[in-house]
Amino acid sequence: MRLTVLLATAATATAALAQQEPAAPAEAAEIAPGYATDADLRDAAQGLFGVILPAAPPADGIEAARRELGAQLFFDPRMSSSGLFSCQTCHNVGMGGVDALPTSIGHGWQKGPRNAPTVYNALFNAAQFWDGRAADLAEQAMGPVQAAVEMNNTPDQVVATLNSMEPYREAFAASFPDEAEPVSFANFATAIAEFEETLVTPGAAFDRWVNGDDAAMTPEQKRGLALFMDSGCAGCHNGVNFGGHDYYPFGVVERPGAEVLPEGDRGRFAVTETASDDYVFRAAPLRNVALTPPYFHSGAVWSLPEAVDIMANAQLGTELAEADIGAIAAFLTGLTGEQPQVPHPVLPPRTDETPLPAPF
Amino acid sequence: MRLTVLLATAATATAALAQQEPAAPAEAAEIAPGYATDADLRDAAQGLFGVILPAAPPADGIEAARRELGAQLFFDPRMSSSGLFSCQTCHNVGMGGVDALPTSIGHGWQKGPRNAPTVYNALFNAAQFWDGRAADLAEQAMGPVQAAVEMNNTPDQVVATLNSMEPYREAFAASFPDEAEPVSFANFATAIAEFEETLVTPGAAFDRWVNGDDAAMTPEQKRGLALFMDSGCAGCHNGVNFGGHDYYPFGVVERPGAEVLPEGDRGRFAVTETASDDYVFRAAPLRNVALTPPYFHSGAVWSLPEAVDIMANAQLGTELAEADIGAIAAFLTGLTGEQPQVPHPVLPPRTDETPLPAPF
Repeated sequence: MRLTVLLATAATATAALAQQEPAAPAEAAEIAPGYATDADLRDAAQGLFGVILPAAPPADGIEAARRELGAQLFFDPRMSSSGLFSCQTCHNVGMGGVDALPTSIGHGWQKGPRNAPTVYNALFNAAQFWDGRAADLAEQAMGPVQAAVEMNNTPDQVVATLNSMEPYREAFAASFPDEAEPVSFANFATAIAEFEETLVTPGAAFDRWVNGDDAAMTPEQKRGLALFMDSGCAGCHNGVNFGGHDYYPFGVVERPGAEVLPEGDRGRFAVTETASDDYVFRAAPLRNVALTPPYFHSGAVWSLPEAVDIMANAQLGTELAEADIGAIAAFLTGLTGEQPQVPHPVLPPRTDETPLPAPF
Repeated sequence: MRLTVLLATAATATAALAQQEPAAPAEAAEIAPGYATDADLRDAAQGLFGVILPAAPPADGIEAARRELGAQLFFDPRMSSSGLFSCQTCHNVGMGGVDALPTSIGHGWQKGPRNAPTVYNALFNAAQFWDGRAADLAEQAMGPVQAAVEMNNTPDQVVATLNSMEPYREAFAASFPDEAEPVSFANFATAIAEFEETLVTPGAAFDRWVNGDDAAMTPEQKRGLALFMDSGCAGCHNGVNFGGHDYYPFGVVERPGAEVLPEGDRGRFAVTETASDDYVFRAAPLRNVALTPPYFHSGAVWSLPEAVDIMANAQLGTELAEADIGAIAAFLTGLTGEQPQVPHPVLPPRTDETPLPAPF
């Protein structure tokens, strides 16, 4: 449903762009090539992108209970078989919702297959993971817990761990009051998802500017926004998250080198087993992108301008001028929102019934 | 200095205990063997143990700045060479200040040599680490960062990492305003120590009882306290932290088995190279001990009653009755204080100058 809405918005916006007059030669009076005023640029941007709103307060006591429980589960390393890893390990709430590693370090010091995407604003993505294999945040939350290269746990052990601590049993009962067995792996995932839905980053320079504050973005950022829309970036990176809602081959025009696009990872092909999904990935959401290097599913690129350059080549067949790359990167930095203030939860103490961490 | 004070207090208390009349046979009217009233028991306890007070607000802007900076450093995994580990990894503020593992998992999935002690109330210890090899919290903070089996970093790389991010440079300048080069490894450690000094746990049942609330401890806990004092536990585990200020051989009377006391770890001998320090360890501080299994420097024992039983055998040559072990364990549970509420800090974003995590 949300996907449809976003695509419709994008289509409308594309039509609106097509109706624009061809860009006149740059004049001092223009705020960006093809846009005379902030209002002109804003009109175009509003058709393509959404604004992040602060998380709503919980609707009721159940939602409040689920958020609180979800925060505990998100931060609890006992959800991994080793006792070392929690959701927070790879989706650090103090570091833009990522781990700032090319690919995550997991159980037994194994190397994860893909760069950890940010948990911030993840609720606005149409699907989760780089290949969209999870429909929503709750389905996503079930993945890393069980992945042998990540938390290496089992649903049964997670449920046994939760059931061993009375404060968890009480929190599940309060969060899922109509259920006979509230402590379940599905409810574990639901509670984490409801906590994650609070992790949004309103107040970015872009959002403030869209909302009418002309001074919120610099002239270079406005030029970058115009380039972002008119060079084609916004064809995939649109919607409230500037991406995250549809799938595209990495290398539409020119396939990047193996370091950036490793041959062994064929992306969405592994999900759909359809030839046309070879090397297809979900367009990365670009909110807070300046906080989340390294870039791409391979995590191979640390510099935002370099990532912009690679994308322009690979997806658009365009060799951007260095100043234009800089302007687009400056604009993208304007997508950094206010980072959530998350209290570190106090976790229930283990009991004699709590499964021990895996022998080490 | 503090050590002297604590020992003097303990000596006074021991003298006070010696002056008591021999314990009369237990009567229903006694609250614990040898103590007729809460006031009697409190008199004895006050001579031996201290009460935890809430952390004082920062004395000035510098202390406030150091605490805030120290919290960021404590939570920043980029202080490790891999980018995976922070102080918080092994001293989790949501889990009693420990990692709940026998010994910590460190760089390259290596096994740490000893159980991670709690960071809570650690400022009240006379020295840090199981062997007391660090004089204070700041000296301690320099250890794990550099240990090859823990964070595996170097002071130079820590300083380079900090210098690469302007918010860190500004925070160090505000925290150490009189210094020409405020960003230093020593100041890194000082800031972490000042944050850690706020991690205290007032309000335990014991403290509330000492402060006059007779109902704060159960009858079993009071009996446990009496046993704790009169069986000899309090000979080493005294002071505000119920331990943490002096060194004793593990196995004063009978050396535990190799699983609990591995032969390869000779404790303080490695620090002093003095034969009398063979298998000598700092008496573990027992605040929040119910939250911090597994026990001993080996982390070999998960059950608090079992740990009490082992200690009575090894240190006192006493075979305690099961009910007495239970009472002492119940009393120790009354040392669980209010856990600090720690906001997860937002960390400065990396820059192009920030050293990359170690190749993986």
